[in-house]
Amino acid sequence: MSSNELGEHFRILTFGESHGPAMGVVIDGVVPGMSLSIEDIQVELDRRRPGTSPFVSSRQELDRAEILSGVFNGVTTGAPICIVVRNHDARPADYDALADIVRPGHGVGWLHRYGVRDWRGGGRTSGRETVGRVAAGAVAKAFLASKGVVVQARVQQVANIKAGAPNWDLVESDPIRCGDLEASNRMQAAILAAKADGDSLGGIVEVFAYGVPAGLGDPVFCKLDAELAKALVSIGAVKGVEFGDGFLVATKTGSENNDRPTPKGFASNHCGGILGGISTGQTLIMRLAVKPTPTIGQDQETVDLKGNPVTLHSGGRHDPCICPRLVPVAEAMVALVLADAWMRRDTSLNS
Amino acid sequence: MSSNELGEHFRILTFGESHGPAMGVVIDGVVPGMSLSIEDIQVELDRRRPGTSPFVSSRQELDRAEILSGVFNGVTTGAPICIVVRNHDARPADYDALADIVRPGHGVGWLHRYGVRDWRGGGRTSGRETVGRVAAGAVAKAFLASKGVVVQARVQQVANIKAGAPNWDLVESDPIRCGDLEASNRMQAAILAAKADGDSLGGIVEVFAYGVPAGLGDPVFCKLDAELAKALVSIGAVKGVEFGDGFLVATKTGSENNDRPTPKGFASNHCGGILGGISTGQTLIMRLAVKPTPTIGQDQETVDLKGNPVTLHSGGRHDPCICPRLVPVAEAMVALVLADAWMRRDTSLNS
Amino acid sequence: MSSNELGEHFRILTFGESHGPAMGVVIDGVVPGMSLSIEDIQVELDRRRPGTSPFVSSRQELDRAEILSGVFNGVTTGAPICIVVRNHDARPADYDALADIVRPGHGVGWLHRYGVRDWRGGGRTSGRETVGRVAAGAVAKAFLASKGVVVQARVQQVANIKAGAPNWDLVESDPIRCGDLEASNRMQAAILAAKADGDSLGGIVEVFAYGVPAGLGDPVFCKLDAELAKALVSIGAVKGVEFGDGFLVATKTGSENNDRPTPKGFASNHCGGILGGISTGQTLIMRLAVKPTPTIGQDQETVDLKGNPVTLHSGGRHDPCICPRLVPVAEAMVALVLADAWMRRDTSLNS
Amino acid sequence: MSSNELGEHFRILTFGESHGPAMGVVIDGVVPGMSLSIEDIQVELDRRRPGTSPFVSSRQELDRAEILSGVFNGVTTGAPICIVVRNHDARPADYDALADIVRPGHGVGWLHRYGVRDWRGGGRTSGRETVGRVAAGAVAKAFLASKGVVVQARVQQVANIKAGAPNWDLVESDPIRCGDLEASNRMQAAILAAKADGDSLGGIVEVFAYGVPAGLGDPVFCKLDAELAKALVSIGAVKGVEFGDGFLVATKTGSENNDRPTPKGFASNHCGGILGGISTGQTLIMRLAVKPTPTIGQDQETVDLKGNPVTLHSGGRHDPCICPRLVPVAEAMVALVLADAWMRRDTSLNS
Repeated sequence: MSSNELGEHFRILTFGESHGPAMGVVIDGVVPGMSLSIEDIQVELDRRRPGTSPFVSSRQELDRAEILSGVFNGVTTGAPICIVVRNHDARPADYDALADIVRPGHGVGWLHRYGVRDWRGGGRTSGRETVGRVAAGAVAKAFLASKGVVVQARVQQVANIKAGAPNWDLVESDPIRCGDLEASNRMQAAILAAKADGDSLGGIVEVFAYGVPAGLGDPVFCKLDAELAKALVSIGAVKGVEFGDGFLVATKTGSENNDRPTPKGFASNHCGGILGGISTGQTLIMRLAVKPTPTIGQDQETVDLKGNPVTLHSGGRHDPCICPRLVPVAEAMVALVLADAWMRRDTSLNS
Repeated sequence: MSSNELGEHFRILTFGESHGPAMGVVIDGVVPGMSLSIEDIQVELDRRRPGTSPFVSSRQELDRAEILSGVFNGVTTGAPICIVVRNHDARPADYDALADIVRPGHGVGWLHRYGVRDWRGGGRTSGRETVGRVAAGAVAKAFLASKGVVVQARVQQVANIKAGAPNWDLVESDPIRCGDLEASNRMQAAILAAKADGDSLGGIVEVFAYGVPAGLGDPVFCKLDAELAKALVSIGAVKGVEFGDGFLVATKTGSENNDRPTPKGFASNHCGGILGGISTGQTLIMRLAVKPTPTIGQDQETVDLKGNPVTLHSGGRHDPCICPRLVPVAEAMVALVLADAWMRRDTSLNS
Repeated sequence: MSSNELGEHFRILTFGESHGPAMGVVIDGVVPGMSLSIEDIQVELDRRRPGTSPFVSSRQELDRAEILSGVFNGVTTGAPICIVVRNHDARPADYDALADIVRPGHGVGWLHRYGVRDWRGGGRTSGRETVGRVAAGAVAKAFLASKGVVVQARVQQVANIKAGAPNWDLVESDPIRCGDLEASNRMQAAILAAKADGDSLGGIVEVFAYGVPAGLGDPVFCKLDAELAKALVSIGAVKGVEFGDGFLVATKTGSENNDRPTPKGFASNHCGGILGGISTGQTLIMRLAVKPTPTIGQDQETVDLKGNPVTLHSGGRHDPCICPRLVPVAEAMVALVLADAWMRRDTSLNS
Repeated sequence: MSSNELGEHFRILTFGESHGPAMGVVIDGVVPGMSLSIEDIQVELDRRRPGTSPFVSSRQELDRAEILSGVFNGVTTGAPICIVVRNHDARPADYDALADIVRPGHGVGWLHRYGVRDWRGGGRTSGRETVGRVAAGAVAKAFLASKGVVVQARVQQVANIKAGAPNWDLVESDPIRCGDLEASNRMQAAILAAKADGDSLGGIVEVFAYGVPAGLGDPVFCKLDAELAKALVSIGAVKGVEFGDGFLVATKTGSENNDRPTPKGFASNHCGGILGGISTGQTLIMRLAVKPTPTIGQDQETVDLKGNPVTLHSGGRHDPCICPRLVPVAEAMVALVLADAWMRRDTSLNS
């Protein structure tokens, strides 16, 4: 598998650079005979689109998707589905001054790895690459919906502000996508303050998957949580992931932490819906540590590619806190992993 | 890739059940011409072996490895290396009473997934499966050593007891593998107290990789941290993983969190040696949340496979805190991911 | 790997249906820093384009390629390269009458396999799918050219007419791509006669790869000839493949068939440049059995999807002998396999 | 996928060298709940075993298989199945004289590929590697038998002696595995004459798969015939493969070659049971060109690794015609490809 691919059975390949002609994805392994329309995809792309509030980047992209293949008369055929989104508000010239500079918090990994780089807005390493993920995630969500599985994420924490339990009815209309309006108001204020200061904030996103039946996931290396961990840490800003009680388990005893099976199901869900890498039938729960956006308005001391000190005056447009826009991306990653696990399971059971 | 495989270029496939004839691994993609002896492998297997202290399981296994293929005159040939370890102290009869019981903290995922199960000591899902991982990790370590890369782990926390910085000279002789002897003494007391109580403890293991050059790892989905996350969460007891400052980033600002590049290198290592999924040339740092062993001595209320309530009196031999024995396993997983990333990089750069 | 993908290191994924919006391919694993222009790709697409002579299909497609990603300032970056070719002369209505009919020589495999089908001109199973292969093959050829490797194919036989050795200077200007003009003239006459008769002809295409160094290919399952066999048989019309002396070896003795090594190299090339699945340093030689185009002008007795007898009056536009247009496709497949083998080799040798 | 692996869903990995400790295979992806005994495997290994007649190698190996994992109480569990066969009649010293010599018809590909080699009897490139293939093929056959699919091969031609249609009742008791006793007698005489002359003979093996339902195989690159071609050409001695009418199609017209669909099924089977890469429901038919064994008794002129001329007096024990022993290997390869295609199909259809 190449690094641009994810999944084995329900598999995707993303392509495109931030300031190149287009972003896109090929989705391969979608079950034939499933209804799929361009609207299913557009609604998810609209959720991750920039330029929609003062809390996110001001880049203006309509992000209109086109399906090039794999759908005939509104139904999937089993052939690969290619979805393309043209880049419109590309301003590569904004980045000319950055061609020879090491951007703090971004590094020059591509240059070390490949010996050349497309410096325009991060090129292939830009967060804009997630356009393809979200388009593919929309297809995965459509598949899961037909099985009764729903994936939902929300912002649980920004800086030191922690939210209470989410009210899902309020999450999407909340510009922070938090779902606890009191906490959201304080988060909004904190983000605007950081923005005014030319700075950025981190946070925590939590993801829930409802309706997952027992028996998804594989033992040993492709455990369901292992695959979710990979998919979620592959999102640029994520520095940690935990399942169920997560890091809290370090301070618990076995008798406290074991979820007791009863005739009516488990008495608790400390494990976050996964045991031994396989789903238990309970809700999946996971949390992501999201770092503050490395691109900030303040001047930063750094070096150029030759190692000489320079001061960086940041160009480009950026998100003062990426958490709200990371919500649909995190959902897409979880949906993609679940769709793949679903089809992987069916192979061995149905033959 | 099957769930029993890890890696693309330096790749492994493990096999074997806890109370079957043997555990084993095939390692494929090892560079030809590398010196490799059975001792290189045995020393790592001895590190994870049970029965060596009151803090770990009392199961007695010599865990003697045999190399069946891939090495000729003490040198790897490029052919796949199969290593087999026979099971000796298998006591499958110990588990007959468990054939129809749901063990708390283990669940019956295999049964949901495959419709049949080997109930003897967890069968394929047993921690004993890590024998193959550690044997393969020894080969990965030998490869990395030839490149100047060293992977070392230690126990950083047990229950609420947090250790200071590790003294690597003391880690291996410390029965907790902590490397802070004052903390280790308290951890030992806590583990023995939990054991006397028929209970178990969780903790945190941290892993360092020294000497990793800049440029390892791939952008997008196979980011170095994403692959590490998958490999580490695939260890049975791990419920969370974080890199560098990890979950702390949620409360930091961009200006605090960015590691400032200077003519002499980075001024800090908040990122844990990875930016954009590619190594920066700094030390890799990651931490694992390890849950308390679910098998405990206390009686536990649970159900049988038909859903009727039963009381479980635990048989078998188990670890009151798995952290010390998880150290060589965590090192193996990190070494395997780094070896794979190393060879993946060389493909594209040298052609 | 999905069925729409080929290769491990230098890998491609094709997408698109004959009468959908576009054909395309994503090429992943191309070495960074390689010069690549749209002209490199267009020249190969022009070679497979229909509508250029009375010996091939009259469908009119300009087949203009666009590169959507992976190339920056005329140089590959290591990112995936997506190439798209829009369909223009799509006439899906031509095929409406065929929606419920089993076309002889095509069958209804897609329907059996997936339960639905895109009947328009074969949909995904159309020979037009090779647009993506040829575009990707052009990139593989550019890579191989930088290593001194050249892949060339030609038509060696049509019906019972066998050509002598090819004169490569004449092959491309020969409408049959035979390179033996006397034979070509007879082939042209035979094809026009068959066409006039509403029928089609088969033939043999042979492919040569010059400049292949010793040591390409892997032992066991991914032998160089095994991978070439898969790639070549994956071309729709190919019913057999042979290497070097091919089926003739059945009637030879070991003493005749062994290519004798001498201080100046091998004394013969019966093996076609591959021994034990690994290249010997000699020219690679392989031959493909190409079936007569199943779409013919004559009325054919067949059945509809319910199994009732019907007479098929063939619509659409087809090739009376597909061999000339199969030449660039066969070259593409061989180039793709060699590029992949090249990069696969470099992984293990350079680490 | 590494070169030691075959298949995606029903997948195998072979290991072992001709004169090392053991040969073996890991089979991964076998459906859980299938009955499997050591006898199922042993019966197939006994069919490929050497030393059983004057027409094959005199090497004495009992080839006793041991199952190390994946089977519990006589039933597969879904875990990987490792099967090991110890080498007993290994005589590595026989090959010391060959350490520095290029063996005609074998070449030194491994040395070119990997820079080192195990020269003992071909090491990993020995035909003895097929022990693992045949053991795995036995498991694939057991799976297919449960679906009503039977794979059978036989020797159709040795030198210029062509057999009539096979009588399957006679094939296994015929030392040539031809099934046409008159032809077999002439083949036996020809082989003994070649052997007396210190020479070897080639031939053609044909394979049939009965009971294959319509709809197996994938379009585009993983066509059923493409996968079969790879698997069959990966057998060391095979220089060509053809399906149905094979190379004969070059001389046929479309109207002759199309298999006419009728209400009662196809009126002919020119295509060999595969159209567009997908099975049609008819019997699969394929033929392999098998080269004469390159190891012969006659002295041969060759060179040493430095390029100096030497005369090779062949040591070791070899087959004067490998065709009879290739029969179970060819069946194994076809069974493995069909089992993989079966499970691949079920993924997409059942989800």
